Amino acid sequence: MAKLPAEQQHPVEALGWAARDTTGVLSPFKFSRRATGEKDVTFKVLYCGICHSDLHKIKNEWGDTNYPCLPGHEIVGVVTEVGSKVQKFKVGDKVGVGSMVGCCHSCDNCANDLENYCPKMLLVYNSIYYDGTPTYGGFSNIMVADEHFVIRIPDSLPLDACAPLLCAGITTYSPLKHFGLDLPGSLYDQPGMHVGVVGLGGLGHAAVKFAKAFGVKVTVFSTSPDKKKEAIERLGADSFLDSRDPTQMQVVMGTMDGIIDTISAPHPLLPLIGLLKSHGKLILVGAPEKPLELPVFPLLMGRKIVAGSCIGGIKEIQEMIDFAAKHNITAGIEVIPMDYVNTAMERLVKADVRYRFVIDIGNTLKIA
Amino acid sequence: MAKLPAEQQHPVEALGWAARDTTGVLSPFKFSRRATGEKDVTFKVLYCGICHSDLHKIKNEWGDTNYPCLPGHEIVGVVTEVGSKVQKFKVGDKVGVGSMVGCCHSCDNCANDLENYCPKMLLVYNSIYYDGTPTYGGFSNIMVADEHFVIRIPDSLPLDACAPLLCAGITTYSPLKHFGLDLPGSLYDQPGMHVGVVGLGGLGHAAVKFAKAFGVKVTVFSTSPDKKKEAIERLGADSFLDSRDPTQMQVVMGTMDGIIDTISAPHPLLPLIGLLKSHGKLILVGAPEKPLELPVFPLLMGRKIVAGSCIGGIKEIQEMIDFAAKHNITAGIEVIPMDYVNTAMERLVKADVRYRFVIDIGNTLKIA
Repeated sequence: MAKLPAEQQHPVEALGWAARDTTGVLSPFKFSRRATGEKDVTFKVLYCGICHSDLHKIKNEWGDTNYPCLPGHEIVGVVTEVGSKVQKFKVGDKVGVGSMVGCCHSCDNCANDLENYCPKMLLVYNSIYYDGTPTYGGFSNIMVADEHFVIRIPDSLPLDACAPLLCAGITTYSPLKHFGLDLPGSLYDQPGMHVGVVGLGGLGHAAVKFAKAFGVKVTVFSTSPDKKKEAIERLGADSFLDSRDPTQMQVVMGTMDGIIDTISAPHPLLPLIGLLKSHGKLILVGAPEKPLELPVFPLLMGRKIVAGSCIGGIKEIQEMIDFAAKHNITAGIEVIPMDYVNTAMERLVKADVRYRFVIDIGNTLKIA
Repeated sequence: MAKLPAEQQHPVEALGWAARDTTGVLSPFKFSRRATGEKDVTFKVLYCGICHSDLHKIKNEWGDTNYPCLPGHEIVGVVTEVGSKVQKFKVGDKVGVGSMVGCCHSCDNCANDLENYCPKMLLVYNSIYYDGTPTYGGFSNIMVADEHFVIRIPDSLPLDACAPLLCAGITTYSPLKHFGLDLPGSLYDQPGMHVGVVGLGGLGHAAVKFAKAFGVKVTVFSTSPDKKKEAIERLGADSFLDSRDPTQMQVVMGTMDGIIDTISAPHPLLPLIGLLKSHGKLILVGAPEKPLELPVFPLLMGRKIVAGSCIGGIKEIQEMIDFAAKHNITAGIEVIPMDYVNTAMERLVKADVRYRFVIDIGNTLKIA
């Protein structure tokens, strides 16, 4: 079945934009989706966010890309069909799918609602599904997924601006919660957490919004001083420092309980470890291709932690989306038409977007 | 006062062995100790362990050594005098002093019995004490310290074989406890922790003994296959693997809840991170001079942690010593005379000791 052309693998005609090789250039791609299975939810895709990892993937920068590669893992739309055994969704519901469409359902991680760490987790694109066909992502007109992996989008959230929460949102929400950086203090007069956010892109701006909604103190570190006004006035950060200015950095050394480091390029960890209090936690959520230099002494001397965190489980994604709805958290977005996607990718390389591109799939992906 | 010769800085004559320069060669050194202050405990040193960090320090390999450098931070002996306000000790008590002799007593770490992470912590040697004089360590006939930093040695523990617990013991006990690697399982049929110990020297063999006393499963990773029999039969490890054999390593990938990594030379972290289960913890307790390479992807994909840990607080050292007494835990030692110390240092470079040298100060440090 996998050897059939993508158009003939399944009964349902579909259209998307895919990269054909390591140039990463996206172009229209005819393929097919499976018919709605008994536990499947099929939905018309309306919006899909562009994540920095899509950029890595279409250019095979992590070395594991299969072509054609149809990216997109911040996918929202409206349900058009549900299978006979689907219990949570009905036609017309607003829904989303993030990075995952499959897992083993039996390992310790799955048993603990951590499908994201299941060794057999299937990605929404660039994986091979159970039927032997490649998975294709959200830069496409139609999506189908097992209801387990479908997220309900509350009516109060705008679909375009909530799409990025399915990756950028959960990727920052989950470690803030898991590593205890969400404590606002006050109980017994304990001071609240002081959280650093390194990098103010798609992930970083979501980290600031969630951390502020948790009620903790937030300091942003960025190499783009022109983002300061917006970080403080619009995102609500308590302070903003130029991470390339040693004087500014020196002032806040040893003051942070935790740091969400969103940088996906190689960068020095030593100054970030220095920002932490004793027992502080540096959480890496970006994925540089090359190893970083880890100075050991500063870790030892303060019993500090460097950890990684990768998206979140389905239950936590739903919790995050519901929290976002309650606290009016959405992503800062620039909505673009489908045929602007290659330009958007070029701008993303230069970090020229505040803060996330979202493709208006519903109105601009034209079926020929 | 600091400018006086070491012999004249204080009223009490003392003799030790000190290094005079970066050759690290130790030779007899006449100096002086302060008179017993009102909160001080003075004791005759009977034994002092040799730690790998002493070797780094006498050769200035960490770049912060002041000469003359009189090392030794695993110091035990018998109390000869106590100050008027000393409450916990009396003449004749068996006591020990480890790495610390001062702290601020007012920071968050001090308030939480974590003097070891106090930014103003004073080391037992190579620090400047409150009176402006250098601190000198345990390779000496007499020791004096504020009672806050003095540990009571239970009668059931042999003084020679318990000396190394004051550093090697607490350095491994503390992270096993703090990072939750001491849980033996059984409650609600939960499996117990599976802990890896990397390197089977002074620190490593203590880690194995404590972990086994906690009742967890222990796998030792070493590059010295000749240590296998002893690791299993004498130390009680559940298994022993050659960390240079990829086939042996492959079998246990993804099976560890935590790892105590005692290696103080640069070494690859990637295989160790691979040994961890999701959410597993790699705890570094050795201190390589150069940064290690940290691969980020494997951390992210399993929400894994790399942390540092440095000795332990005074309260926890006492707890560890009492635990050791209860469970008959002592260090594996080779007792040597004082004038063998330079040969011992050479053998330590080659890891040629099982597992810790302990100097018989009481019987072999001759006052001319």
